[in-house]
Amino acid sequence: MIRMTAADLDAFLHREFPQIDRQGYRVELVRDRFARVRMAFHADHLRPGGTVSGPSLMSLADTAMYVVVLAMVGEVPLAVTTNLNINFMRRPQPVDVIADARLLKLGKRLAVGDVAMYSDGDPEMVAHATLTYSIPERR
Amino acid sequence: MIRMTAADLDAFLHREFPQIDRQGYRVELVRDRFARVRMAFHADHLRPGGTVSGPSLMSLADTAMYVVVLAMVGEVPLAVTTNLNINFMRRPQPVDVIADARLLKLGKRLAVGDVAMYSDGDPEMVAHATLTYSIPERR
Amino acid sequence: MIRMTAADLDAFLHREFPQIDRQGYRVELVRDRFARVRMAFHADHLRPGGTVSGPSLMSLADTAMYVVVLAMVGEVPLAVTTNLNINFMRRPQPVDVIADARLLKLGKRLAVGDVAMYSDGDPEMVAHATLTYSIPERR
Amino acid sequence: MIRMTAADLDAFLHREFPQIDRQGYRVELVRDRFARVRMAFHADHLRPGGTVSGPSLMSLADTAMYVVVLAMVGEVPLAVTTNLNINFMRRPQPVDVIADARLLKLGKRLAVGDVAMYSDGDPEMVAHATLTYSIPERR
Repeated sequence: MIRMTAADLDAFLHREFPQIDRQGYRVELVRDRFARVRMAFHADHLRPGGTVSGPSLMSLADTAMYVVVLAMVGEVPLAVTTNLNINFMRRPQPVDVIADARLLKLGKRLAVGDVAMYSDGDPEMVAHATLTYSIPERR
Repeated sequence: MIRMTAADLDAFLHREFPQIDRQGYRVELVRDRFARVRMAFHADHLRPGGTVSGPSLMSLADTAMYVVVLAMVGEVPLAVTTNLNINFMRRPQPVDVIADARLLKLGKRLAVGDVAMYSDGDPEMVAHATLTYSIPERR
Repeated sequence: MIRMTAADLDAFLHREFPQIDRQGYRVELVRDRFARVRMAFHADHLRPGGTVSGPSLMSLADTAMYVVVLAMVGEVPLAVTTNLNINFMRRPQPVDVIADARLLKLGKRLAVGDVAMYSDGDPEMVAHATLTYSIPERR
Repeated sequence: MIRMTAADLDAFLHREFPQIDRQGYRVELVRDRFARVRMAFHADHLRPGGTVSGPSLMSLADTAMYVVVLAMVGEVPLAVTTNLNINFMRRPQPVDVIADARLLKLGKRLAVGDVAMYSDGDPEMVAHATLTYSIPERR
């Protein structure tokens, strides 16, 4: 079922998207239609007030969804996000953020999933996103 | 925690929104920050091709979210949906639809939740919605 | 450019979706990548408090987007909504609702558009929706 | 009507959000319920393939909406995004991106707007976002 392990995905991301090294992302866990990505806390993600910024959470959601798609489909560097919807619910704490991505549909053309984000160690969601990915035709 | 039972909510909906009787909704289950609503299958929900229509699923998501808000907050007839985002993922079967609504945040002014919808008896989601409700100031 | 006129579209909708007659929809205007649909006010759309219901506005947005896709693509009865996002901004008045649908992208596989909705005679938007349609492969 | 000019807003953003200097944002134009923000093209926004990344567009949409809210409300550093929905429609070109933000509703508690984004010099939208901002109570 799973075509790439967490270690494969980590290596792929850091090779293909070197700017991700600066974001401090790490793929922690991959299971059937599920992936967990950790974003290490660091000063670049901060907003005034000491909280993790909204754009940092949006980037993280986008990456976590990409990871779960790749895990199930294999290396498809051209898959693109077509829609992202995010609700910001609580002020994140100044700690790592954990993103749990779940694939809700994996069709031939579109993948749909959602991503629940948490401040590390706190069970209340800080943000929730749903995303659609367009999958290129396979030859 | 729960301020209205499934039976209370069923009675409230049918009294306040008599048009819901025509939709065939029934509140089946209420737990902490969770509610399940069933939409009985009938011909008014149909699209050509024999499937349940998108607008029927949107109405159901809206009602299920309202139910879980009421369950936690009590009778607040003036709460209003401010945002709804829905992804349609699979063609529903011509059977009842089950909507599982989960409250992700219950703030003083806004409630955020998501609703997973299934054709009765089939574990794959047919649609997934996230909603925001504005809660009127409490006196 | 335009493959179906407002009159063609009106006839098509009422033939293919007879339940729409009960909703009181009328295609008023079609231009390049634009369509206007009017929803006649009637009691079925009401919520307590005398306002047009959220689900009525969602159905209207869905239909208006379908109309503008059909206008540009021709009769494609199998096109399906894959995503709808709607913000409810003002309480609609107990009058007709006007929906102005604009096609933002018409690709081979996906069409994206937005729909601005107004109470007839009032320039302030009551609701705004964005939608994605999946277009079946053309043989 | 307008409480802050483009120059005021530019100075405010660069003082309060110094990381924005690295993003290359500039407030170009402010009118009643409208603001235009330019994102200068530079290598940090790139994805493999030479296109501007999705997260860069999401950050830009978020900033442009914040700018139009500030323009109408005045300095409210605590206003927060509660919902963002974005459709990515065309691959951006490797040039500046122009974001046109329009305020659709400015209520006491919530502001709703949309943002149209273009590659500089090209009339076709590359992305379209709708956002909701929560406005803190004014004392």
